[in-house]
Amino acid sequence: MDYQSTYFHEVQYYETDAMRIVHHSNYIRWFEEARTAFLKQEGLDYDKLENRGIMFPVLSVDCQYKMAVSFGQTVKIISKIDYFSGIRFGLSYEVYSQDGSVLHATGKTTHCFLNTDLKPINVKKYALDVYEHFLELTGSAE
Amino acid sequence: MDYQSTYFHEVQYYETDAMRIVHHSNYIRWFEEARTAFLKQEGLDYDKLENRGIMFPVLSVDCQYKMAVSFGQTVKIISKIDYFSGIRFGLSYEVYSQDGSVLHATGKTTHCFLNTDLKPINVKKYALDVYEHFLELTGSAE
Amino acid sequence: MDYQSTYFHEVQYYETDAMRIVHHSNYIRWFEEARTAFLKQEGLDYDKLENRGIMFPVLSVDCQYKMAVSFGQTVKIISKIDYFSGIRFGLSYEVYSQDGSVLHATGKTTHCFLNTDLKPINVKKYALDVYEHFLELTGSAE
Amino acid sequence: MDYQSTYFHEVQYYETDAMRIVHHSNYIRWFEEARTAFLKQEGLDYDKLENRGIMFPVLSVDCQYKMAVSFGQTVKIISKIDYFSGIRFGLSYEVYSQDGSVLHATGKTTHCFLNTDLKPINVKKYALDVYEHFLELTGSAE
Repeated sequence: MDYQSTYFHEVQYYETDAMRIVHHSNYIRWFEEARTAFLKQEGLDYDKLENRGIMFPVLSVDCQYKMAVSFGQTVKIISKIDYFSGIRFGLSYEVYSQDGSVLHATGKTTHCFLNTDLKPINVKKYALDVYEHFLELTGSAE
Repeated sequence: MDYQSTYFHEVQYYETDAMRIVHHSNYIRWFEEARTAFLKQEGLDYDKLENRGIMFPVLSVDCQYKMAVSFGQTVKIISKIDYFSGIRFGLSYEVYSQDGSVLHATGKTTHCFLNTDLKPINVKKYALDVYEHFLELTGSAE
Repeated sequence: MDYQSTYFHEVQYYETDAMRIVHHSNYIRWFEEARTAFLKQEGLDYDKLENRGIMFPVLSVDCQYKMAVSFGQTVKIISKIDYFSGIRFGLSYEVYSQDGSVLHATGKTTHCFLNTDLKPINVKKYALDVYEHFLELTGSAE
Repeated sequence: MDYQSTYFHEVQYYETDAMRIVHHSNYIRWFEEARTAFLKQEGLDYDKLENRGIMFPVLSVDCQYKMAVSFGQTVKIISKIDYFSGIRFGLSYEVYSQDGSVLHATGKTTHCFLNTDLKPINVKKYALDVYEHFLELTGSAE
């Protein structure tokens, strides 16, 4: 019953830019890192699902940058599954300093489920166990 | 009086991912490419402004992915300055197939102005010519 | 009979790092850009070859960095096919300033041919036209 | 007296490409990750040295790719300082599967020392403690 997940990312030099801070595009990649770690921890590994023919590409992202992150820092990312409909799901993210005292950014992503032909699938019909897993994560199962 | 700008980007192999489509984080980078090209074409080159001590980091991004882009494609990005307040500005982007027939994604970014100490500046006071330039681009000048 | 190819790349802000120069890993990506543009110009498009089941991953890269490249610059990359054996091929690259006056870096890549099962193929047997194309590019055909 | 260092990297989805393997340019970034972790573990943090005005950019890289790495894998990278002259230093890297049974790649990087004006420095004169630290890592100190 982990409705949220904590992930740590150590900032890499190659993630910085000429403003001497992390380039904003990398937060989108960090969301992916946090999301895959979250799902993996719940037994919903990206690669295992892909091997079963289930992909969940990104339909939308947004990110609000509040305080720049620099090389030398480790960030702590809290991810949460906001909703899951069987067709789509959404997560939200909070990027903190390692000790949690500074909120660096917040963001959201939404996803659908596709088969390997990139056609949308209803995951309840396609893979009931995956469906039930996701339901649990959103706390919607009774 | 160019209120919008057209930019072409040829998809690179290193931008693809294991779904055999462009990884979603790259659209955020394409927005930056289109934005810098737009501003450069208007004489507002990032590097020249940085040399004058004016930086404009990203405050927020969002992107709606509508149709995947593959290697071998060139995308056409239309950028527009949505607003400019002297303190902040926002752009919107549309990512099309090269011939304009398919809309692949839409997005927005917002920005503020900072000096080299990363303190917010009022660009009207700091650099009047830059202020007037931006005003023109938003069509707000009379 | 183009034994070498010239490619221009405009430096992107997201390619810079906290030293305020282009991060060294991007040169490896530029080599790929220059290589795909070279091959495309010769009718050997990556994506068309992939659709015919021919892939040519990188076996090795090296890069010698001589002079840093900054945002605001456009680099000119000269690529040349060094050798082609039917099993493997190698290219070399020179990265210049736009006007050709400064040599920023040199590098090499080597490649083999694989089918879609990632098994090595002899391209002469697999696709004679591709074989002959490559031969021409290396000036080895008589 | 750690003459070599072990670093683990979990492959990220954004590091894959359309061949469904890790894009070759990312190994160069992994070398940087392993190198910074190695130096940090020895008290030679990049960011602390940069704050003291010492930078060590990459003069050359090479990488030999032996076996592709896929999403879902964690790689184990062994780094070693090959030499240190006070002016330059070099490292070598071996990229293994997590359990060490498969060698995926090997590589090398070389570096010099620069001050913040990007001028070469003799680190023995500039920062004796850093000089002695490096000497120890190469096992050259008596």
